[in-house]
Amino acid sequence: MSTDDAFPQPLGGNTMPRFGGPATMMRLPPTDGRLDVAFVGVPLDIGTSNRPGSRFGPRQIRAESCLLRPYNMATRAAPFESLVVGDAGDVALNTFNLAASIDIITDHYRSMLQNVGVPLSIGGDHTITYPIARALAERHGPLGMVHVDAHADVSRTMFGERITHGSWLRHAIDDGYVDPRRTVQIGLRGTGYAADDFDWMAGLGARVVPAEECWHHSLTPLMHEVRAKLGGGATYLSFDIDGLDPSVAPGTGTPEIGGLTAIQGLEIIRGLRGVSLVGADVVEVSPAYDASGNTALVAANLLFEILCVVPGVAYRTA
Amino acid sequence: MSTDDAFPQPLGGNTMPRFGGPATMMRLPPTDGRLDVAFVGVPLDIGTSNRPGSRFGPRQIRAESCLLRPYNMATRAAPFESLVVGDAGDVALNTFNLAASIDIITDHYRSMLQNVGVPLSIGGDHTITYPIARALAERHGPLGMVHVDAHADVSRTMFGERITHGSWLRHAIDDGYVDPRRTVQIGLRGTGYAADDFDWMAGLGARVVPAEECWHHSLTPLMHEVRAKLGGGATYLSFDIDGLDPSVAPGTGTPEIGGLTAIQGLEIIRGLRGVSLVGADVVEVSPAYDASGNTALVAANLLFEILCVVPGVAYRTA
Amino acid sequence: MSTDDAFPQPLGGNTMPRFGGPATMMRLPPTDGRLDVAFVGVPLDIGTSNRPGSRFGPRQIRAESCLLRPYNMATRAAPFESLVVGDAGDVALNTFNLAASIDIITDHYRSMLQNVGVPLSIGGDHTITYPIARALAERHGPLGMVHVDAHADVSRTMFGERITHGSWLRHAIDDGYVDPRRTVQIGLRGTGYAADDFDWMAGLGARVVPAEECWHHSLTPLMHEVRAKLGGGATYLSFDIDGLDPSVAPGTGTPEIGGLTAIQGLEIIRGLRGVSLVGADVVEVSPAYDASGNTALVAANLLFEILCVVPGVAYRTA
Amino acid sequence: MSTDDAFPQPLGGNTMPRFGGPATMMRLPPTDGRLDVAFVGVPLDIGTSNRPGSRFGPRQIRAESCLLRPYNMATRAAPFESLVVGDAGDVALNTFNLAASIDIITDHYRSMLQNVGVPLSIGGDHTITYPIARALAERHGPLGMVHVDAHADVSRTMFGERITHGSWLRHAIDDGYVDPRRTVQIGLRGTGYAADDFDWMAGLGARVVPAEECWHHSLTPLMHEVRAKLGGGATYLSFDIDGLDPSVAPGTGTPEIGGLTAIQGLEIIRGLRGVSLVGADVVEVSPAYDASGNTALVAANLLFEILCVVPGVAYRTA
Amino acid sequence: MSTDDAFPQPLGGNTMPRFGGPATMMRLPPTDGRLDVAFVGVPLDIGTSNRPGSRFGPRQIRAESCLLRPYNMATRAAPFESLVVGDAGDVALNTFNLAASIDIITDHYRSMLQNVGVPLSIGGDHTITYPIARALAERHGPLGMVHVDAHADVSRTMFGERITHGSWLRHAIDDGYVDPRRTVQIGLRGTGYAADDFDWMAGLGARVVPAEECWHHSLTPLMHEVRAKLGGGATYLSFDIDGLDPSVAPGTGTPEIGGLTAIQGLEIIRGLRGVSLVGADVVEVSPAYDASGNTALVAANLLFEILCVVPGVAYRTA
Amino acid sequence: MSTDDAFPQPLGGNTMPRFGGPATMMRLPPTDGRLDVAFVGVPLDIGTSNRPGSRFGPRQIRAESCLLRPYNMATRAAPFESLVVGDAGDVALNTFNLAASIDIITDHYRSMLQNVGVPLSIGGDHTITYPIARALAERHGPLGMVHVDAHADVSRTMFGERITHGSWLRHAIDDGYVDPRRTVQIGLRGTGYAADDFDWMAGLGARVVPAEECWHHSLTPLMHEVRAKLGGGATYLSFDIDGLDPSVAPGTGTPEIGGLTAIQGLEIIRGLRGVSLVGADVVEVSPAYDASGNTALVAANLLFEILCVVPGVAYRTA
Repeated sequence: MSTDDAFPQPLGGNTMPRFGGPATMMRLPPTDGRLDVAFVGVPLDIGTSNRPGSRFGPRQIRAESCLLRPYNMATRAAPFESLVVGDAGDVALNTFNLAASIDIITDHYRSMLQNVGVPLSIGGDHTITYPIARALAERHGPLGMVHVDAHADVSRTMFGERITHGSWLRHAIDDGYVDPRRTVQIGLRGTGYAADDFDWMAGLGARVVPAEECWHHSLTPLMHEVRAKLGGGATYLSFDIDGLDPSVAPGTGTPEIGGLTAIQGLEIIRGLRGVSLVGADVVEVSPAYDASGNTALVAANLLFEILCVVPGVAYRTA
Repeated sequence: MSTDDAFPQPLGGNTMPRFGGPATMMRLPPTDGRLDVAFVGVPLDIGTSNRPGSRFGPRQIRAESCLLRPYNMATRAAPFESLVVGDAGDVALNTFNLAASIDIITDHYRSMLQNVGVPLSIGGDHTITYPIARALAERHGPLGMVHVDAHADVSRTMFGERITHGSWLRHAIDDGYVDPRRTVQIGLRGTGYAADDFDWMAGLGARVVPAEECWHHSLTPLMHEVRAKLGGGATYLSFDIDGLDPSVAPGTGTPEIGGLTAIQGLEIIRGLRGVSLVGADVVEVSPAYDASGNTALVAANLLFEILCVVPGVAYRTA
Repeated sequence: MSTDDAFPQPLGGNTMPRFGGPATMMRLPPTDGRLDVAFVGVPLDIGTSNRPGSRFGPRQIRAESCLLRPYNMATRAAPFESLVVGDAGDVALNTFNLAASIDIITDHYRSMLQNVGVPLSIGGDHTITYPIARALAERHGPLGMVHVDAHADVSRTMFGERITHGSWLRHAIDDGYVDPRRTVQIGLRGTGYAADDFDWMAGLGARVVPAEECWHHSLTPLMHEVRAKLGGGATYLSFDIDGLDPSVAPGTGTPEIGGLTAIQGLEIIRGLRGVSLVGADVVEVSPAYDASGNTALVAANLLFEILCVVPGVAYRTA
Repeated sequence: MSTDDAFPQPLGGNTMPRFGGPATMMRLPPTDGRLDVAFVGVPLDIGTSNRPGSRFGPRQIRAESCLLRPYNMATRAAPFESLVVGDAGDVALNTFNLAASIDIITDHYRSMLQNVGVPLSIGGDHTITYPIARALAERHGPLGMVHVDAHADVSRTMFGERITHGSWLRHAIDDGYVDPRRTVQIGLRGTGYAADDFDWMAGLGARVVPAEECWHHSLTPLMHEVRAKLGGGATYLSFDIDGLDPSVAPGTGTPEIGGLTAIQGLEIIRGLRGVSLVGADVVEVSPAYDASGNTALVAANLLFEILCVVPGVAYRTA
Repeated sequence: MSTDDAFPQPLGGNTMPRFGGPATMMRLPPTDGRLDVAFVGVPLDIGTSNRPGSRFGPRQIRAESCLLRPYNMATRAAPFESLVVGDAGDVALNTFNLAASIDIITDHYRSMLQNVGVPLSIGGDHTITYPIARALAERHGPLGMVHVDAHADVSRTMFGERITHGSWLRHAIDDGYVDPRRTVQIGLRGTGYAADDFDWMAGLGARVVPAEECWHHSLTPLMHEVRAKLGGGATYLSFDIDGLDPSVAPGTGTPEIGGLTAIQGLEIIRGLRGVSLVGADVVEVSPAYDASGNTALVAANLLFEILCVVPGVAYRTA
Repeated sequence: MSTDDAFPQPLGGNTMPRFGGPATMMRLPPTDGRLDVAFVGVPLDIGTSNRPGSRFGPRQIRAESCLLRPYNMATRAAPFESLVVGDAGDVALNTFNLAASIDIITDHYRSMLQNVGVPLSIGGDHTITYPIARALAERHGPLGMVHVDAHADVSRTMFGERITHGSWLRHAIDDGYVDPRRTVQIGLRGTGYAADDFDWMAGLGARVVPAEECWHHSLTPLMHEVRAKLGGGATYLSFDIDGLDPSVAPGTGTPEIGGLTAIQGLEIIRGLRGVSLVGADVVEVSPAYDASGNTALVAANLLFEILCVVPGVAYRTA
């Protein structure tokens, strides 16, 4: 493989068997110095309201990422040929204190952004998007948001707590970190308490795409609309694995039936090529609920696909 | 939430964490007095021919139903605002004697229908639909039947027994409890012994929709036809979870590939709005074959969606 | 069975199949009024440092308790013949805030103790013993403590938090709720940071019985010593399921090898007959790590055996 | 290996990899003609009161038996050098009708005993021992019985049914197929309804060995007593896998804690050398509750060890 | 069922319960003499690069095939009415030596083809297709190939080895056993090292259908093109279960997201009716990664559907 | 913790939550330079004869080792206070070629021993002990061997192959790498082909301790004898996880019932204090057969305990 030495490469399957080697994301080598893109683990799951376990998401997603190879056969993206990509390890959060952890994550990202261009975060539950968005917004201004999820995550509070996995987006908007007019929610569905969840977002100018609108067809056309709405501004992609159907991603905490297919997930991400992506996450993988490891494998693939649409990625010609 | 005190409400997720509280359906409070709709568990599985375990269906489906909230975001149905809904517990069947249990179930429903409008039954294997249909037909006359299933369930006998999970429908028709001219079967597929299974039903005037007819598209158009066929008469919905593809509902006893998606399952149920539904069931969930709990979660969602199309449900305006 | 009507009885296996009926502890009927003994669920797991999931302990332990019958064949205890026993449901804790939950639990027990003699608590992680002990000590004075566990649970703090599943006992002692001179720890083992964990307790007058002291023999002799140490004062039994070997109780969060057998667990509990037990708990069952359900079954049995040594239990004559 | 051609041999691990070859017991070749010992599958599980699934016991036990080699390293038994052993397949029972199946099994064994010396049966639930014992008693007279189990199985009825997995032994005695004075029960424990279960047997002259009597020591001394009690008469061994502790055999329907170790199970069987064994069974393996397959592996080993004490087995000299 | 005695029939579900009877494919009786179609197990998995376990594929697929009935309800194929079909057991490969096993398999098929018309092979990993194709090409000349897979399997070497599960097709072409101009690959996707994988095949005249070309629609139209490309020559179908999406077939070694649905798998196979099929395989089922057994069930169904398009199968008239 | 900076320390549980941080053994930091002790992964499993999957042993054992703390509470060993310990990663073996991998492993250890004092190897299947012993014997002369296992591993060949997981020890002795007069085998049991397996070793002067000799008592007395036999010479400990009972270590490839307890495993290792240990391994953990992760956890603990008896370890005073 002819790649400049400056670009760290994932450990290859013919150099070390896939089940061996370091359990970093894609078996990337140790890093220091500046990274264009960093994979970051955020093993927080005390912001979750039903099944826990996403604290083991980063470890399991990295483990299953051993199957990933560096080149995207479908899109011809070759991210490791033009970007310095590394695995920046995990945030040392406080697993006993949600509010404290939110502050720790915020500070961690503030600091990390000195040396990292685009953080791709591995959850953890969805609470983590609030502090990440905060740190990124401090740098880039209010973020456009592509939010793939079964749930709107705009509760005011949960059991009196302000920032949780079901309320982070409302407060990220209220606190000015996310721009609702450049926000799209895809995959919302299921049961709720009131229509407000969907209506509040729409009222602020967001585009809400319930799962029903996605059924039975490609999301590629939708992504034209999404790119237009996002415009050229700094944008974040938050991909809750429960946006996908439980048949695709059984290992998650609050599954809802009738969700997106893996194919639609790929279409969403590939449809973000050209967008000014400044960060992204894949959250809510709870490995204990999928003994096969495949939910983590789905997440690992989504993270690689996101890497393939980070600004600056090289694409090979056909 | 503004609901009249007369309407019992599911225990809310901000009142008690979802993993706590009573393990009734949707964590409904104890009931007495008349119910418009009752969830009833029928933990019978000795009528099954392959993998057993659906005896644990009622317990597991109720456990997973803790994630359900009272309002249907997609259809705007708010069943707990206009109907008195309760969990009526389980039928005390004889787990050692299939024929005796069929009689016990019949008697239980005969008695229960004094105080319950619409029973929504939680199986248990498909045998249970025979005695339930019998009790309902004694009250309402021969029932229209929407039968979602991988199998036709019209065997004459199985090992010499008349009423089993693979023969109940033939005898429900022969005995006059189900009207074949107002019967639709959706999702039939797989291997068999002869074409008769499908042809016998069609010959009696039923509409048989094999899975192949459902592939790759929405079932919403089909449901127009179904509603027309059902007309205004009393109708029963029997939803065998194996009507869905095993990828969606792995935890079942006689899975067949190439089945319906969860989305199509939702379309079928939502397409029954306006039909005179007098009862329904979701059967054949065998929890031991899905450690994630998600098959039971699918069933819990289907039961909630069925509740949302029971006559008399309130729908909020957009 | 000849029992006074005043004593609620578990639903019998010939009245309702074991897989049916209410998912209360031992399928006990709904309760109101005073209880001699109450089973209480405390579905807290955000005080845990490794694998989560014990929030589902109460639900799963109750589900598996369906196999329990009311009479103890080995000891001839017949608790439901002389005590009013009920299932008092779950504590509505705040799953997002550990400190707040500790206060909620404290208040819940303070209030409950108005009407309940002996609470038998179903965890949840080990953090819950702190608030329970607090409420009980407010009523009974400093408690004697029989603490079965792989871990000493006497860390000063964990990640800066004072009350967690690994530090509750130190603070329960420091705050005066537990009397170290009437405390016995059984089953301690594994790796640590320093010998202090064991030495601090011993220095305060506690009896520390490492697992190694338990290997290869009955614990019945030890229990003579334990009863002597406890004397006649109010005593609490806190049984961490990880006191047992992981082969016996695989479904737990911080398993340590070389632990107690189930037999030794039974010997400990049966050895407490005659002690002034004012409360007890079984904690740290994490169902997602044991798909068979058997860890929860072990816990259900331990809870029943504890019930059999509550003061006032009737014993049948041989 | 020097064995007469007349003796069928298990397929060897160096002839066909263990994961290949026929899924018969120990990969024995097809049989016809007379057998000294026959393995027989009895896939009945509708006589069970809690978790079902032992209908898959025969298939799974045979599958896991692929690991067995023909020689007993500990006892030097070489059963395939002196006995004609075969796998006689399964009984074609009626899975929808317990009473009918009991008759089918009876007739099957009556007929099979024309050509089979000692049937070793693979359950299936414990109900099967009644019809097997009946057929054997018709040939040999009332049987001595070694009954390893957590439960006494002497209920009068269950839900009104006479012969079930919890009542078979009472009726086998009452109907004259089992001689209680030559009966030993080992491993009884757990909860019950009354002391009668144990006392009734003892009153008839049986030796009841509760699990508590087995704790912490070898059962080899007990087996001296057992052999004396059995004397020289025809004897049956019925080994319920739940006689073992759930840590050893998690995949079973009604597990009880505090049971026998696998070692004690081996000691019991090896202690029967010299007894006039005319049949045996291993029952109640429910594979769905042990994804590792190990419970079935335990059962396969127990069956091999039983084969090693069938009268007429060759033992190699040291 | 009216079938000539000359045609062996699968054991019926009303003759022996599905969970009983021999664990041959579809519970077919023992065979000798010539077979039109033989199911053959090839339990090789040391040619796999990630998760192993497909060595247990043949055993598990046969076990799950018990649910199959002899008639195809959708296509009206009745293969057992016109073809002599049997289960020819497993290849006795050397599980410690890949190269040796490839030779063993080659020789086994060379010999078997004396008496077998069309072998339908049950993998095992994909390496097995090389020796099978070799033996078939020696008899029929270079084979047309329908290759359903997530991966192109055209690596030059893996860790220096020539024939592995990721390189077999390149060498089968280079060595003249497969005709690339009559080759179609369906379902390719995921990550790789370079575009060459796809381009090399296309350059030789093969038709490469990436998964993306299959998304959201029926593959029936594609199969018209496929049949045209295959023409009348001898053709082989190699169906890697990972061609299907992991949601459909989780139990496999190198899963890739965004794959085919089970429905599309059926369409591919049914679309081969009329093609001169001389052999086929279903490979890469790794049972340990799907505790439900459903991946093996999918494979069993695919094998039955393949049987239904073998030349000479009878089709009943509607 | 007061340790010299020269000694790398495992990442602490209050520095980074246990479920975060690097997935190295005990979360040790990256290493370079000389190591007193190195953990080395050898992810080979193509030398196994039944269930595969131990290729994932190193990854899973490291993952579960996150729970280990640096100090041994029972023995007061503090290995990280006096030894430079690191995780040296995995051997890049050829997963398609067993013979080639044996050479790769040999060369890897030869080279590694330039900079590593005592390698503690993480299997992988038992084949790996042959090349490791070879490299160590080249340095230290013929090794004393403590071999804990259910199997003697002294087959001459398996399917014609010389070095496999069932034959490595015979050839390690024949080739002069292991001294049989300083060899002890502990835990042998189960079925075999002939008594030779045990007798051959004994005939060479080895001490063979079958499992039966270990039943029901502590192995501490045995270890006096073992230390005497080993004398002062260089010694290797090879611990096959299947030496333990399947109840303790279900996740392994060739389980045999009636094995050692975890306690006995600890006694064996602790009993080696003072022996000239030059290397050790824990092998045959197959994670796919234990979804709880606990078998890997057992192995991680055993590896830590072995570390605690490496010559030169500091012991704190009581």
